[in-house]
Amino acid sequence: MSRFLQIVSVPEAVSAAAGIPSGPAAEEIPSGTATGRVLCADVTGAGDIPGFDRSVVDGYAVRAKDTTGAGDSIPAMLECTGQVAMGRPDPGLSIAVGACAYIPTGGLLPVGADAVVMVEHTARTGETVLVKRPVSPGENVLMHDEDYPAGAVIFPAGHRLSPRDAGILAACGRTSVIVAKKPVVGIISTGNELVPAKETPGPGCVRDANAPMLAAYLDGYGCIPRTYGIVPDDREALDAALCRAAGECDMVLLSGGSSKDDRDMTAQVIAGRGDVLVHGIAISPGKPTIIGRIGNKPVFGLPGHPGSAYVVFRVIVVPVLDRMLGQKKSCTVTTKATLGTNVPSQKGREEYVRVRLENNVAYPLFGKAGLINTLVASDGLIRIPAGCEGLEAKSPVDVILW
Amino acid sequence: MSRFLQIVSVPEAVSAAAGIPSGPAAEEIPSGTATGRVLCADVTGAGDIPGFDRSVVDGYAVRAKDTTGAGDSIPAMLECTGQVAMGRPDPGLSIAVGACAYIPTGGLLPVGADAVVMVEHTARTGETVLVKRPVSPGENVLMHDEDYPAGAVIFPAGHRLSPRDAGILAACGRTSVIVAKKPVVGIISTGNELVPAKETPGPGCVRDANAPMLAAYLDGYGCIPRTYGIVPDDREALDAALCRAAGECDMVLLSGGSSKDDRDMTAQVIAGRGDVLVHGIAISPGKPTIIGRIGNKPVFGLPGHPGSAYVVFRVIVVPVLDRMLGQKKSCTVTTKATLGTNVPSQKGREEYVRVRLENNVAYPLFGKAGLINTLVASDGLIRIPAGCEGLEAKSPVDVILW
Repeated sequence: MSRFLQIVSVPEAVSAAAGIPSGPAAEEIPSGTATGRVLCADVTGAGDIPGFDRSVVDGYAVRAKDTTGAGDSIPAMLECTGQVAMGRPDPGLSIAVGACAYIPTGGLLPVGADAVVMVEHTARTGETVLVKRPVSPGENVLMHDEDYPAGAVIFPAGHRLSPRDAGILAACGRTSVIVAKKPVVGIISTGNELVPAKETPGPGCVRDANAPMLAAYLDGYGCIPRTYGIVPDDREALDAALCRAAGECDMVLLSGGSSKDDRDMTAQVIAGRGDVLVHGIAISPGKPTIIGRIGNKPVFGLPGHPGSAYVVFRVIVVPVLDRMLGQKKSCTVTTKATLGTNVPSQKGREEYVRVRLENNVAYPLFGKAGLINTLVASDGLIRIPAGCEGLEAKSPVDVILW
Repeated sequence: MSRFLQIVSVPEAVSAAAGIPSGPAAEEIPSGTATGRVLCADVTGAGDIPGFDRSVVDGYAVRAKDTTGAGDSIPAMLECTGQVAMGRPDPGLSIAVGACAYIPTGGLLPVGADAVVMVEHTARTGETVLVKRPVSPGENVLMHDEDYPAGAVIFPAGHRLSPRDAGILAACGRTSVIVAKKPVVGIISTGNELVPAKETPGPGCVRDANAPMLAAYLDGYGCIPRTYGIVPDDREALDAALCRAAGECDMVLLSGGSSKDDRDMTAQVIAGRGDVLVHGIAISPGKPTIIGRIGNKPVFGLPGHPGSAYVVFRVIVVPVLDRMLGQKKSCTVTTKATLGTNVPSQKGREEYVRVRLENNVAYPLFGKAGLINTLVASDGLIRIPAGCEGLEAKSPVDVILW
C-alpha cells in the first residue's frame, strides 16, 4: 500500500476531501428556526421594501417646491391640513399647494407631498406652520422601493443566516426558507485506552475527549452529530462500527489510533470498505491524518490528541462540511496581531501554533503533544505556511479565532 | 418629567443598566448540553490529568541513564523485554538496567523507565534495540499531573463554554456543570404600523423585523426569548403587555415607537410600573433609547428601525445580559482594519457606522435611517468615540464583527 506513504500538502488534502461529497440536499424550514443554517436558494423580497414612501423623521409632509428659499428670517408659511396616523392611511388626506400635514417617523407620505421637513426646522402657531429650511424632493423620505425593489436578491444561495438576518427575513415576509439539510456526521472514537467521560480511568487509560468536542462543534455548525461510542483497537469491531456509521451518516469521523500500528489498521479498515485517498498530511499537528471515502461519504481518521484533532477538524474537515452545506464563504474569523516571541517551524509542513491573545499580541503556547492546558489557555491558532522556517517576534500574524 | 430630557453618555447608560439586575441564578446541567452556557462555579479536574506517566511518541521506554552518550556511531545497546499494551497495564513489566520495552504513543510508562526514545532514533534486530540518541529523564513523557494536577481550576466561574471546552470537560470527568440559568427575555413590538411577518402589510404598514431578530440573537446567546406579539400605540394595551412580560421574564425589550409621541408614551408606561433611569443616550443610531427598571428587571425601549435596535442591543443590552449570566469577558469579536473613506461624525455622541470589510479595508455604508440593505451588506460596525469629529480615510479602526 505505497499510497499510504506519500505525504500530501494541506491544499491537496483539502481539495481531495472536498471532492468526495455531493452538494447539499435542500429542505424548507420556518425562518424562525433558520439561524445558523445555509441557504440553498436565493431569498428575494416578496414586494418592494419598505413598500410605500415613508418618512424617516418626525416633521411635516410638504411639496418641496413650497419650501424653496425658506430660511430663519423668511420662513415659508404653510397651512397644516391634517396629520398622518401610523398604519392607518387616510384616503382624504392630500397635500395641496401651500399645505402640509404632520407626519411621524415611519408614516406614509400623503398624496401630493414629495418631501418631509424635520419638526426641528419648523415653528407652529395654530394651523400655521413656519418652515425655516428648504427641502428638495425626496428629502427625509425613504422611497417605496429604495431599500429593496420587489424581486431583488436579498440573500444569495450559500449564505449562512445570522440572527440579524432573521429580522430581515421577517421584513421581507419570508416565513420559510430553503436551506441545506443538516449533514449527519458519525463520530467513532477508537482506542483500548479510552473510557467514557463518566468513568474513572484505570491505569494507562484516559477519558475520551474527542467525541464530545466534535459533537459540540458539529451541533453548533448546523450538522447532526451521531456518536458511535468507543471502539477497541480491533479490526473487526472497527469495521463493524465504520460500516454502520457509513450506512447511517453523510460523513464519518474516526479519532484515536495514536500509534502507527493503530493508524495503519484504521486505514486498512477504510480501504476495505472504500478508498483511502490520503494517509499523511504535511501539517503539524495532525500529520498522520487519513482521508478516505465510502461512496460519496467522506471518512476521516483524525489524530487522537484533542488539540491535534481540533486543528485537523478545523483546517481539513470544515471545508468539506462547507461543501456539503453549499456554504460559499468560510465562517473562520481571523484577527490581526503581532507575534510576541519567535516561533520556529519545520519547512515543508504547514504548522498551526496555539496562541493566547493579549492586547493584540499573540503569545505562542508551546508544550508537549497531548497537553490540553494549552488548548484551554489559547484564543486561537496562527498558521505558519509550509515554505517558512518560522516567524520572528513582532511579525504581523493573522490569528484564527477558535 | 425633566429627567427625560437629559441625554447620558454610552458608559453612563451601560453602567445604569448593568446595575439593575441581580447576578445569575445557578443550575446544574449535563456537560453535553452546556456549550454556549456560562459557568457559575469553577470547574476543577477530578484527578490528575493525564493521570499516569504517558508516552507522547511511538518508541522505547528506557532508563535515561542507559542512553548517555548514545549516537549514530556508538549506539546504546538495550534488550527489549516487553511491549506496553494500550489501556491494559502489565504488572509484570518492569524496565531493568540495560533493558527497554516498546511503547506506543499514549502508553503507560512502565515501572523502572523514566523516558522514551522515539522509534525513529532506534534500530532493532531481534530483541536487541540500538539507541542512537540520548534522552534525559522525562523526555517524550507527559507526567501524570503535568497537564492539570488534581483540584486545579480548569475553567473559572464566568467562563462561557465553547465546543472545544466540551472535550476538556469530558477529559476531566465532568459530566455535569453548574451554569447560569438562561435569562428569560420578553420581547414586545409596538406600533400601529406593524404587522407580523406572515401578513402582507397594507398601505403605511411594515412587517415587524425586530422581534424575530432579537429572539434569534437571544436564543444564540444562551437566553430564552419570549415574544409578546405586536402591541398597538395604545397606553392601556402597552401597559398590560409590559405588566405581563415583567411578571414572566427577567428582562423586557420593547421596540418601536419611532415617533417622539410614541417614545414618550413608552417611557410613561414604564414609569407607571417602575422607574425610567435613562431616556436618551448620546449614541447614533439609537439616541431615543429608554432604560428603565421594574424591580430588579431591566426594561429597555429600543428604537424601531432594525439597524438602530440592533446597535443599541449590542452596545447597551448585551453587557446587561453578561451581568445576568455572570459572564466575565465580552463575546464581542473585533478585527483590525483600515478605513476606506472619511467618516464624519457629530462630536458629543458615540457613533456606530456599518462597514463592509474587504481585504482588511472597512468601507462605511451610509444611507438613510431605516434602510435594511446596509444592515445586510455590512460585516460589522466601527465605533467613533463621542469626543471625535470623525475619522479620516486610512485610519486604523477596530471592526466589531456582527
